[in-house]
Amino acid sequence: MVPSVRATQSLLRSATVTRVVAVVGGGQLARMMTPAATALGLHLRVLVEGEGSSAARVVVDAPVGAPRSARDVLDLVRGVGDDGLPADVLTFEHEHIPAEVLAQVEALGIAVRPGPDALRHAQDKIVMRRRLTELGVPCPRWAPVPDAAALDAFLAEVGGEAVVKTSRGGYDGKGVRVVRSSAQVADWFEAAADGGPALLVEEKVPFVRELAVLLARRPSGEVAVWPVVETVQVGGVCAEVLAPAPGLDPDVERQAVEAAVAVAAGVDVTGVLAVELFEIAGEGGSPARVVVNELAMRPHNSGHWTLDGAVTSQFEQHLRAVLDLPLGDPSARARWSVMANVLGSSLERLTDALPAVAADPGVRVHLYGKEIRAGRKLGHVTVCGEDLAEVRSRAARAAALLRGDEPTG
Amino acid sequence: MVPSVRATQSLLRSATVTRVVAVVGGGQLARMMTPAATALGLHLRVLVEGEGSSAARVVVDAPVGAPRSARDVLDLVRGVGDDGLPADVLTFEHEHIPAEVLAQVEALGIAVRPGPDALRHAQDKIVMRRRLTELGVPCPRWAPVPDAAALDAFLAEVGGEAVVKTSRGGYDGKGVRVVRSSAQVADWFEAAADGGPALLVEEKVPFVRELAVLLARRPSGEVAVWPVVETVQVGGVCAEVLAPAPGLDPDVERQAVEAAVAVAAGVDVTGVLAVELFEIAGEGGSPARVVVNELAMRPHNSGHWTLDGAVTSQFEQHLRAVLDLPLGDPSARARWSVMANVLGSSLERLTDALPAVAADPGVRVHLYGKEIRAGRKLGHVTVCGEDLAEVRSRAARAAALLRGDEPTG
Repeated sequence: MVPSVRATQSLLRSATVTRVVAVVGGGQLARMMTPAATALGLHLRVLVEGEGSSAARVVVDAPVGAPRSARDVLDLVRGVGDDGLPADVLTFEHEHIPAEVLAQVEALGIAVRPGPDALRHAQDKIVMRRRLTELGVPCPRWAPVPDAAALDAFLAEVGGEAVVKTSRGGYDGKGVRVVRSSAQVADWFEAAADGGPALLVEEKVPFVRELAVLLARRPSGEVAVWPVVETVQVGGVCAEVLAPAPGLDPDVERQAVEAAVAVAAGVDVTGVLAVELFEIAGEGGSPARVVVNELAMRPHNSGHWTLDGAVTSQFEQHLRAVLDLPLGDPSARARWSVMANVLGSSLERLTDALPAVAADPGVRVHLYGKEIRAGRKLGHVTVCGEDLAEVRSRAARAAALLRGDEPTG
Repeated sequence: MVPSVRATQSLLRSATVTRVVAVVGGGQLARMMTPAATALGLHLRVLVEGEGSSAARVVVDAPVGAPRSARDVLDLVRGVGDDGLPADVLTFEHEHIPAEVLAQVEALGIAVRPGPDALRHAQDKIVMRRRLTELGVPCPRWAPVPDAAALDAFLAEVGGEAVVKTSRGGYDGKGVRVVRSSAQVADWFEAAADGGPALLVEEKVPFVRELAVLLARRPSGEVAVWPVVETVQVGGVCAEVLAPAPGLDPDVERQAVEAAVAVAAGVDVTGVLAVELFEIAGEGGSPARVVVNELAMRPHNSGHWTLDGAVTSQFEQHLRAVLDLPLGDPSARARWSVMANVLGSSLERLTDALPAVAADPGVRVHLYGKEIRAGRKLGHVTVCGEDLAEVRSRAARAAALLRGDEPTG
């Protein structure tokens, strides 16, 4: 029995709770759902990896358990003990829940959103590429690579260099390698032969920048799309998001939104969907275009700016969507919003830097309460305003202060 | 031992917590501090009246105790057990903490903000009126009334009608009576003779409307003032707040802000200060003016609009101020913000009304998770926009839906 669950039993008995939402995953995404849940009178029950998880620090009902354990997930949705309220819906802040566990939740009559069939496309990049290709959504050239020969054949076809990905388990640049030879992923082929994730290969797209489209979709089909953003990656990790994407060609914007809406409807997504895209310059008379890079079916780093920069944040919208409530207004509240991630630092730095960061009165700080490891995302900052260059430099300065860097400007 | 405290012991041990803030009072004001505390990486420890308190539902570290118990308050600030982190500061969401308890906290070397000397002016209306009069801050004519004769003399002087208040313990129209004779407060005189609160009397001000100035002040003296708002009361309870106050004469605005800043500095307030004022029309060549009605030294109903309508909310600003962090930007984020309170309803109504309320995508809903009693404040809604009449009608409609009224427009 987990103490935090026990502590809430008598609470729930008399609770004036409008809905109960069960969430798998105790990271910062679940943590950042809490303000919206509080405001809407929802009860959040979050399955956390440990008591020190980011969400466990701020969620009253946060049982410790494993996303792969049917028992832990079933306890989560049923509520434990006589006083536990069953969940109205199960949702996720990551994709690592086996389909057979989700089927057992659905068998209890509890909604799973996004549904298991949709979620497969966020869990497995081969399933995703296959479905997007069927839907006619623009993708890079790609192929599953069952063996080294298949990969070498693809490399020869595309001119010697390509991107190999593991179909499952990748994030923040992990599970992605740019290679010129199959020997460079010999270890992954070995792992795949031992039951590890299958591999796929994609052409290395000559993109000019990365974009992301974030939307939410209800079971009824209602869709709300936030402004298209530019994401700036450093070493495979998102460093900065510019909302909206500066100087975006209206035709590219239309293509990006159409691709995202086609994915949402084609895969029957419920909740928030993030579609990361490459923007490719027009060439020889052909217009600029986009191809889809990755999908996520949950609140996403590219949408953190919405907490401060949009009427409705992605976290509130995800809760509304999975509860099949009407969606909130996704409009921007400022001409520009810039989000900058705060990567690994030390607690002393975060603590000591707060006064200097707060000295810029318009900087919005979001810390995740995570145990600190080098390179880990520990928080983010957002600045909104009229002048993009100024907003961007203020966000960068605040993030640098929190990282403990010497301020750069 | 309270379970919610026990549950957090191991959590605190490894917590990446930037500061620890102890809060007395488990109502909606403490509840609405949680999003800002989460974002700033603060650990909130809230002394709640019971496990069903509004804040207890969303605060992990929420020991049950009495604000008047020195032991409970000292446990709160010290942290209980080996792993409890001592608080950096003690603050409040209500004024009902005895001065001698606060003195014991200060004796431990833990900051109390607002300090006991400042807080007396929010605890006792006679102390407040006396100090404001010394400071030259405009007040209604007033007098302490030790007995019926003193009250009748005042009534004769002001023309037969006046407002009698208990010096302590009033809120939302309680502890306030408009009288024409001392007989109408005979029960209060009796109670005062039995050790109950002393009484004061104030002239019945012929005001045209009520205004409120909300500001925050740090120990360093830095002050940030939000736009002056109009508050609309129904039956002594705030029903609606219009931000900014429509058509406010710049000279009246200046007077209102000057009065609030004079109070903040003169009384040495730290944290949020709400100053409620009456606006009095100019007459016979004399300009319009204001007089101070009430004070509160904490986040206040007149500032709930700042959660959605200002760059920095009153809840975040209060935490920044009591921690002596630089203050955030208090600017409005929209031309108009209108907040409407949701008074007593039923849980079924709140639950059933959510889809209809959410169908207006710009309505921001804030429910307090309180047990429901007739007339109790159960939540509020805020709408921001360009057209005051439209914004006001949308806010009123959403509040009516949540109350379970027939929609009026």
